[in-house]
Amino acid sequence: MEKVRLGIIGVGNMGSSHLRNYLDGKLPEIEVTAVADPKPDRLAWAKEQLPSLTTFEDDTALMTSGLVDAVLIATPHYFHPPLVIEALNHGLHVMSEKPAGVYTKQVREMNEVADKSDKIFAIMFNQRTNCLYRKAYELVHSGEFGALKRVTWIITDWYRTQAYYNSGGWRATWSGEGGGVLLNQCPHQLDLWQWICGMPSKITAVCHEGKWHRIEVEDDVMIYAEYPNGATGTFITTTGDFPGTNRLEITLDRAKLICEGGELIVTELERGTQDNTDHSEQGFDRIPNKTYKAELDGRNEQHVEVLNKFAGAILHGTPLTAKGQEGINGLMISNAAFLSSWLGKTVELPVDEDLYYEKLQEKIQNSTFRKEVKEQVNQDMSSTY
Amino acid sequence: MEKVRLGIIGVGNMGSSHLRNYLDGKLPEIEVTAVADPKPDRLAWAKEQLPSLTTFEDDTALMTSGLVDAVLIATPHYFHPPLVIEALNHGLHVMSEKPAGVYTKQVREMNEVADKSDKIFAIMFNQRTNCLYRKAYELVHSGEFGALKRVTWIITDWYRTQAYYNSGGWRATWSGEGGGVLLNQCPHQLDLWQWICGMPSKITAVCHEGKWHRIEVEDDVMIYAEYPNGATGTFITTTGDFPGTNRLEITLDRAKLICEGGELIVTELERGTQDNTDHSEQGFDRIPNKTYKAELDGRNEQHVEVLNKFAGAILHGTPLTAKGQEGINGLMISNAAFLSSWLGKTVELPVDEDLYYEKLQEKIQNSTFRKEVKEQVNQDMSSTY
Repeated sequence: MEKVRLGIIGVGNMGSSHLRNYLDGKLPEIEVTAVADPKPDRLAWAKEQLPSLTTFEDDTALMTSGLVDAVLIATPHYFHPPLVIEALNHGLHVMSEKPAGVYTKQVREMNEVADKSDKIFAIMFNQRTNCLYRKAYELVHSGEFGALKRVTWIITDWYRTQAYYNSGGWRATWSGEGGGVLLNQCPHQLDLWQWICGMPSKITAVCHEGKWHRIEVEDDVMIYAEYPNGATGTFITTTGDFPGTNRLEITLDRAKLICEGGELIVTELERGTQDNTDHSEQGFDRIPNKTYKAELDGRNEQHVEVLNKFAGAILHGTPLTAKGQEGINGLMISNAAFLSSWLGKTVELPVDEDLYYEKLQEKIQNSTFRKEVKEQVNQDMSSTY
Repeated sequence: MEKVRLGIIGVGNMGSSHLRNYLDGKLPEIEVTAVADPKPDRLAWAKEQLPSLTTFEDDTALMTSGLVDAVLIATPHYFHPPLVIEALNHGLHVMSEKPAGVYTKQVREMNEVADKSDKIFAIMFNQRTNCLYRKAYELVHSGEFGALKRVTWIITDWYRTQAYYNSGGWRATWSGEGGGVLLNQCPHQLDLWQWICGMPSKITAVCHEGKWHRIEVEDDVMIYAEYPNGATGTFITTTGDFPGTNRLEITLDRAKLICEGGELIVTELERGTQDNTDHSEQGFDRIPNKTYKAELDGRNEQHVEVLNKFAGAILHGTPLTAKGQEGINGLMISNAAFLSSWLGKTVELPVDEDLYYEKLQEKIQNSTFRKEVKEQVNQDMSSTY
């Protein structure tokens, strides 16, 4: 085949944005042939954009239509795993939007199906295409600067108003999204965090529900992570602060990296900190070092690159931006954060997935919150990717 | 009296440094007349610097000598409260080095004596004289920018080698210091934190003991604070990182302040964040704002200013840099952090002082750690104030 025939499942905010990228000619090896959405007005909108599209109200009908080789799943979060499983079982390649799902039990089942499938399974971790984070990944993984000691990410530049939360009935509910800032805004950072720094073994977190908004889920969170090698990490996020901060600091044995304002500042040490700590005869010693701005290649193609690499993996066997199975890692951190906060204690990873599922169901069943909804599709999502 | 006749109790690293400031002519309203130290070589050193000094091996003898109006207590931490109490009871004015003590139970008893005394009781919170923190205090307390929402202090630029810890037998032991980075390096930041942002009502913390050094006390800490108004704070510190970071970020309803590298950057919003969150019709709204460098007066006189204000309070009734009774606040935060970490749960403030005392005694009694000691007095302490 020359092009991948793609069906988009869900043409709300994200699905529409992907369709627009296609219409703008940015996906040369993809042909969008079909879309599915339960809302007739969304299908009408899509058809208006691209009259050649076949539209479906039913996802299964799209998958079995013979019109697609692959699907892009851009539905609310809970539907990602069952739709991925269904698509793989229909012999289709799948790209899932983030997050991988809402709870790891469901995502692990999805991964088990994907592991047995010979189809390509990818996830939309478009922030991994950002030259800033690619460079940080490269520096940490080069091994040149030794082991991770500490990571601190203040990621509070997610300001959202009450109107945002009122714009969709599923938004910021336990039954609709299964969480707030950790499930909607932070999946990229949670993924980058684990991608660059590896998976922690313990999580201690405090998640505040409805602190700044009339919502039932968390909008203010502190996560403290402990790694198998003794390193530690802190992740601070909210949708309540303006203008907020996005500052990622990583301390390695022989370097410190700071990602902020689109720059990566590196302080490189002449010798390892721990070796110096152990052997120096000076109590207040300093280690010779140099600080410089890392050279970045400037590429930051986001969704377009992820989709083009998805097509490349299908057509030419070239590497993906992120394998679908990797989506469980960032989700595991957020599930652990909720569980730690709800139980009021440190939890170990892998998270107890049955206990988490049970606690989430309690949240859903005990929910008495009634949203004021004022639907808005096609808001400007440019700051939410 | 024209000058305050001052006795220095303890001429180790800090006491010697105060004596040098006096000899350099920086304390015009103070006359150092006496010193006390149990170590004859330290007394000999002091006498060499200033032959007019009367020296005492015994603290009480100094206090009752009639040679002093006031004492400066620069002993190991545990002795601060009993010596303050004794000095006040002898009718002397007292300046205590930081921390106020090791556990709040002891410090509360000291404060009760001070409350009943008509003598001046001050504490060496010299970082309050730094124009950077004075400006932050002024901006937060002006009320102009609304309530505190969030504070994050990464204060990891306390690099110490093993040689530092080996330099004194009392250092970094439960019996000698009652803690590590929180009791020795951080009392200033813990004080500035509460001075600028007020006292939290809950603390969740993880304190790692001997993570980067062969010591029995904590050298790597994360403290999460919750305030009565719903604001939150995170404080990250260690003596194991090089070069480390000192970055204090404070988010108010109408401003964000960042203190780093000797500068205070202010982002001032045109309207309050919460009001905008509640009433904006835009989901992804932005609040008009301006960012600028705050003008600082450049004054940063540290110990010299604190001692001159101490003399001023005694001679002229002018204000102190910090009343001695305020020392309990930062100490309460560190006591709560230990207790939270030892119990593995969030603790409420005021801390249960009997429980903390009991747990600290357990730490002391169960200590099996044997230090390798190589005494060093008169290290360069310039980075440790």
